[in-house]
Amino acid sequence: MRADDPFLSRYAHGTRAMTASEIRALFAVAARPEIVSLAGGMPFTAALPFDVVGDVMSEVLAHEGPAALQYGGGQGDPRLREVLVDLMRHEGIHASGGDVVVTAGSQQALDLLARMFCDPGDVIVAEGPSYVGALSAFSQYQVQVCHVPLDDAGLDPDKLSNELDRLSREGQRVKFLYTVPNFHNPAGVTLTDERRDRIVEIARRYDVLILEDNPYGMLGFEGDPPTTLRARDADNVVYLGTISKTFCPGLRVGWVLAPPAITERLVLLKEAADLCSSNFAQAVAYRYFAEYPWQQTLKSLRDVYRERRDALLDSLSEDLPPEVTWTRPQGGFYVWVRLPERLDAKAMLAKAITARVAYVPGGSFFADGQGSSFLRLSYCFPPPDRIREGVRRLAGVVEEELDLLRALGGLRAPTDEPDGAGPAGWGGVQ
Amino acid sequence: MRADDPFLSRYAHGTRAMTASEIRALFAVAARPEIVSLAGGMPFTAALPFDVVGDVMSEVLAHEGPAALQYGGGQGDPRLREVLVDLMRHEGIHASGGDVVVTAGSQQALDLLARMFCDPGDVIVAEGPSYVGALSAFSQYQVQVCHVPLDDAGLDPDKLSNELDRLSREGQRVKFLYTVPNFHNPAGVTLTDERRDRIVEIARRYDVLILEDNPYGMLGFEGDPPTTLRARDADNVVYLGTISKTFCPGLRVGWVLAPPAITERLVLLKEAADLCSSNFAQAVAYRYFAEYPWQQTLKSLRDVYRERRDALLDSLSEDLPPEVTWTRPQGGFYVWVRLPERLDAKAMLAKAITARVAYVPGGSFFADGQGSSFLRLSYCFPPPDRIREGVRRLAGVVEEELDLLRALGGLRAPTDEPDGAGPAGWGGVQ
Repeated sequence: MRADDPFLSRYAHGTRAMTASEIRALFAVAARPEIVSLAGGMPFTAALPFDVVGDVMSEVLAHEGPAALQYGGGQGDPRLREVLVDLMRHEGIHASGGDVVVTAGSQQALDLLARMFCDPGDVIVAEGPSYVGALSAFSQYQVQVCHVPLDDAGLDPDKLSNELDRLSREGQRVKFLYTVPNFHNPAGVTLTDERRDRIVEIARRYDVLILEDNPYGMLGFEGDPPTTLRARDADNVVYLGTISKTFCPGLRVGWVLAPPAITERLVLLKEAADLCSSNFAQAVAYRYFAEYPWQQTLKSLRDVYRERRDALLDSLSEDLPPEVTWTRPQGGFYVWVRLPERLDAKAMLAKAITARVAYVPGGSFFADGQGSSFLRLSYCFPPPDRIREGVRRLAGVVEEELDLLRALGGLRAPTDEPDGAGPAGWGGVQ
Repeated sequence: MRADDPFLSRYAHGTRAMTASEIRALFAVAARPEIVSLAGGMPFTAALPFDVVGDVMSEVLAHEGPAALQYGGGQGDPRLREVLVDLMRHEGIHASGGDVVVTAGSQQALDLLARMFCDPGDVIVAEGPSYVGALSAFSQYQVQVCHVPLDDAGLDPDKLSNELDRLSREGQRVKFLYTVPNFHNPAGVTLTDERRDRIVEIARRYDVLILEDNPYGMLGFEGDPPTTLRARDADNVVYLGTISKTFCPGLRVGWVLAPPAITERLVLLKEAADLCSSNFAQAVAYRYFAEYPWQQTLKSLRDVYRERRDALLDSLSEDLPPEVTWTRPQGGFYVWVRLPERLDAKAMLAKAITARVAYVPGGSFFADGQGSSFLRLSYCFPPPDRIREGVRRLAGVVEEELDLLRALGGLRAPTDEPDGAGPAGWGGVQ
């Protein structure tokens, strides 16, 4: 590496990489036992049926050991791809295993798709806020991310249409729309049925490909979300799936379902990136979903997460001051919290850590410096009692910050209307 | 994807991707049971101790199940990194686990390092021939690969020095030297001790980083190779290791040992690429190398491969016509065969497949169209009898081609001196 290396300068001064490092440092701190971490989005793997997993692994070694420990094909195990097609049928998708490429989690799919489509200076449209790992993958390719606001009904079609219109008029080259329609990370909201049709139509109209990232779709607490975008437009939607939340992240198995021309190129990129995914992990995933009652495990995982979601929402209502608002997820892992505008969630984090509670500041979920008064809370990992304790600690920190602001005259009294968004605006629900 | 997408045009017309597809098609054909495949470099995983592997996996599930099925850190399991440091001590390397980054095999290391260092138009220097997976990874970043010839003593330092001199005079920006010093893929040769010192010195002199890729170093049949380049220059050599050949490829565990400034950036790239490697796979690798007699398995693997190497070399001597020459590997998986210049190994492949034997044509191992009269034979996977049968079939095809050439007047009689390289030239050994 030379001092004038563009990589070096990109990383030394880039905001994305700083965020990634900061988040890493945060997670390291948040892992200390005295801290209640509402930061990481780690699934609760302790609830998995380890006897079943042990049986599956023994079967794989006994029946296909040499092949499972061998290199595999770049596209992935054909048996697993068929099983993934069956899984997607639950979400209204009809597809063939030949159109699936197995990846190392969805993260690798994001990386390879960005590599396939993006050149420096290209534009990607994404929800604001957006999954931090996607922003991090995209930033490798020096693209510009344009955020379109979400509200409680998900991505706003009117604002999407306006943004695509603006970009088109400016002659910008939009490579794709990246979206998480179900139980959004970090916003917790779900795109309504009516908006799904509109968004598919708008993307068509502006000739923009959709990347539909769906890690949480099977983790609905009050029923399934509306059918996927891919089910509505097979030709213009690339669908990203993963077993990280329905089974476990430790096997690193995700997948892409795409039109054949993309699939073919994706396999080449996958081979250049890491030759192939683990045959062993794929064989385990295949047998788990093909031969074991995975729905039963999924149901118990949903029960675990529902209870934790309830614990978090109840505690937020009980403990947080009225100036703070948040979303009410019907599935997935996350609640998106809006602080009064003058509070800075990143600056407040040090105090939160001192008070032994951790969260992810909202700015991490934007590529353009927005989000400073937001934060993400995850309820997936800590048990309900710890969640309640964490919220009490967080509430203490927020109260202190508000007292300080009031003393400095920077905030109206709590009985006043909050700054900024009215009742229909983002975060207006509580 | 739009029709004018640079990706599309790069792939539709690029020679690299065609080669990758062709190799994929070749391997698909070569997998047919009636064909003796001397093409793929698949380790003989059937020789692994499956009872041990089963025990290790059960232990991991019993003692650290929830963590093993969870996300992990981007740099990799710290316990595994310490064990990898111990492994590298066998090769003369003294390092710390903090300087190691775990990757999805060495292939991901190649991809991420190329991503870190290369911009379109940059130059990479590599042996000619070179590992096809490395060429494929580098080609993603639109670099120019300059090949420096190998001979039976490995990469030629004088030619390296000349090439770096030429590139420097032309103002070209050389990002690194990529080299496989031990039991080279595809050439089978090993860099001599004396040349190692010279190459390290030359790279220093021209301020060019070395990427030392060492998948086969522990697979020596007549003793260990000379100490690694990394052991000779810790500051200017990035070392790539893998357990794919000493244990198994199915876990996708490789690693990079690099100076701290590179390690730090590599972790960010790894996280953007796939978040982390499989915790489960890393825990299995850790326990296997920390707690089980892996040297014993390695010894039996070496015995298996030595016997196969001998079978291949003996059959080549017995069956192939005198115009054909080849290398004599002292370890690893590959023999590099030189046909008389007028024979084209790629054109001959269809006939070989018809004769039920497969190999990889030499052109795949060059980024610049060289190598048409070479081919790579792998002896790692088929048992000795199949290897002998494969060589007999290959010899028949070569004889036919030579007869045809002689009939057309394109080749001198077999008693004449072969075209091209003299006795000291590449491929002069037999």
